[in-house]
This record gives sequence, C-alpha cells and structure tokens, in this order.
Amino acid sequence: MPSPVLAPVRLYDSLISGNAYKCRLILHKLGVPCERVELDIDRKETRTPDFLAKNPNGRVPALELENGVVLPESNAILWYLAEGTPYLPEDRLERAQALQWMFFEQYSHEPNIAVVRHWALHHGATTQEPSIVAKRALGYDALAVMDGHLRERRFFVGDRLSIADIALYAYSHVADEGGFDLSGYPAVLAWLDRVAAQDPHIPITQA
Amino acid sequence: MPSPVLAPVRLYDSLISGNAYKCRLILHKLGVPCERVELDIDRKETRTPDFLAKNPNGRVPALELENGVVLPESNAILWYLAEGTPYLPEDRLERAQALQWMFFEQYSHEPNIAVVRHWALHHGATTQEPSIVAKRALGYDALAVMDGHLRERRFFVGDRLSIADIALYAYSHVADEGGFDLSGYPAVLAWLDRVAAQDPHIPITQA
Repeated sequence: MPSPVLAPVRLYDSLISGNAYKCRLILHKLGVPCERVELDIDRKETRTPDFLAKNPNGRVPALELENGVVLPESNAILWYLAEGTPYLPEDRLERAQALQWMFFEQYSHEPNIAVVRHWALHHGATTQEPSIVAKRALGYDALAVMDGHLRERRFFVGDRLSIADIALYAYSHVADEGGFDLSGYPAVLAWLDRVAAQDPHIPITQA
Repeated sequence: MPSPVLAPVRLYDSLISGNAYKCRLILHKLGVPCERVELDIDRKETRTPDFLAKNPNGRVPALELENGVVLPESNAILWYLAEGTPYLPEDRLERAQALQWMFFEQYSHEPNIAVVRHWALHHGATTQEPSIVAKRALGYDALAVMDGHLRERRFFVGDRLSIADIALYAYSHVADEGGFDLSGYPAVLAWLDRVAAQDPHIPITQA
C-alpha cells in the first residue's frame, strides 16, 4: 500500500511548458488544491540561486510538499500524485507499461516534439534549420509508434485514462505549434479527442 | 500489493549498451535467470521487421515475459523487476524520488553522457565537433547535479542501493570512455565505488 500522501503546497510552474501542464492537469483531475508559482523560463527564472536551491537541475515543474521536500521531474510528480488513484493502474505489468510510455515520452517524444515547439514559439526558429529538420523527423517517428499502438486501443495502458496518457497528451496536442502535421496519424488524433473528453479536464492555457 | 511477477524469459540485449546493462545487473542481483539475445545496434539489428514487431520503437533493452508481452525502456524494466524487492523503496515519496532520478537519467544524463560515449566508441567522433562539445557541457551539468546530491548521501534515495543508483551507475561508470573527466566530482567517484562494492555485482562487460 502506498504511504499517506504528503500534501503538495506549491507547484513551480510555467504556462508555456507542457511538462508543467501535466501537473496542473492531474491536480485538477484529483481536486487537489495547490499554490502556483509562475516562472519565466526565457528570462532564466528557473536558474536563479533561489530556485536552484529548490531544484538543482534548474527546471520546472517542481512540486513542493508540506514537509519542504521539492520533487522535480513531471512524470515523477504524476506518479507521486496518482498512486492509489484510478489514474495509475494497480496491475504490476500495467504499472510498468505506464512507466514504459512515460520514459518513451521523455526520451523519444519530448526532446523532439516539445523542443521544436519551444524553438518555434519562443526563438523564432525557422523550419529549415538542420537541427529542427532532424528533430522533426524523430518527432514523426515517435508519433508513428504512438499511432500504431493506439490503432486498436482507446488509451495507452489498460482501457482507461492513466498518467501515461496525460504524459503523452501534454505535448502531442500542441504539436501543431511546432509545425507538426498530425493528419497522417488518425489514431493519435482520435485519442487526443478522447483524452480531452475525459472530465474533469482543463486546457494547457488554464492556470 | 504488486501482482505476481510474470517470469522474464528473454532479454533483447547489447553488451555495448549501458541501458541494457541496467537490466543484466538487476537480473543478476535478484538471481532471476533469463535468456539473453545479443543484437548489434550498429548493424541495425534493432530495426529489423522481426524486432520492430516486438518493440516498435526499435531499441534495446526489451524484456520478453512468459505471457509474450515485450516490455521496452530500461528504467521501466528496472521498476517491473524490482517491485516488492529491497531495490525499490516502499515509502511513497521515496518511490517518486527514485523515479525523479530515473527520469533525470533519461533526460539530462543519458542523452549527453551515453551518446557522447557511443559516438566516440563506435563512430570515431572527435572531441571538437560542435554537437559533442554541446553534449559534453550538458553531461558535466548532470554530473554536477549528481555530485551535489551525493555530497551528504551514500545513495540517491534513502540509505540503500536502489534502482535509481543502478540507472545512474550504468553510464556514469563508463563516462571516461566518452572523454569525461570525473576528477572534479569526488562524491560521484566515491558513490561509483560504493555501488560496485554492493554484492552481487557484475561488470558491464559480463553477459
């Protein structure tokens, strides 16, 4: 059995970050209140001495708990908050499969799809730069893996929304902002609609 | 309580992969036997139609279970095998902190330290290429975060070896093969010795 959850008191957040949105979305779904501290990544507010004392890796999101511990890494935060809830499977293999897709998200998906979106939105990167071309190809590879998996499934693990879906939804549903065309991935498009229809839901723009 | 573990029957493996070594090491520590199938990454044996049918993301390691399910992603495999053993903390926050370091490993550490090692060992990359210079700087950033965390701790989470240590040990202990000089990270060096001293242990070269 999971130990009792220490209440979260503060989410170090950024509205432009899909990783941070994962945390806002699970907190909203669970009805857990939490103060939000918005940090400006482009102004390096995640690299100040004060913030580095909380998360030495200098990134948002990070979740501060009532005992003062700060937990970084969006997918670790999702796991922490979801243990013992319907958003984290009980079956041992399904738990590992949820992690499988969350590690896939951080290794094969986010570094390509999220990073291209960030460069496009915030640094005016153009679509022909070699580093963008390479990341876009890898991003489409990740979307193809997702599309194949979703062709005969409603959600990534088991038959209900889990934190694996939340992790992959965060940047997939705004991939077009990085110039990705999802029309060739119909199973992904149908899944995006399915995830957004699971109440309670909030959009990425909602603080 | 975790569901009964389905016995692993086959590890799709590669002796040059630190990610695959994580799986060999936990299997050895747990005394779990498992057939090993060596694939040659450089010869694209992880991208054949047969292997893509098992892991559509085309990577090793991947663990085939007795029910035929193939579980990819090294850190998801570590979690699956370690649930209910001393290598995965029981405390809810410590479980999330183990994941925190495992996601750190896959996002901030492996893409820099492992990739530079792979390019150096297998593609003869020279140390002055811009992509290597950039990744080496990020790799040192990750080592600095680890060193700060380990300065007053014996292991990454709690006070015993966990899968978080195994995940980070895999490529840290061979970082010199990618040209990383660890002499400025004394807490990391002491921790590497400590991890290697935890019996039962096997080196990365042992099949």
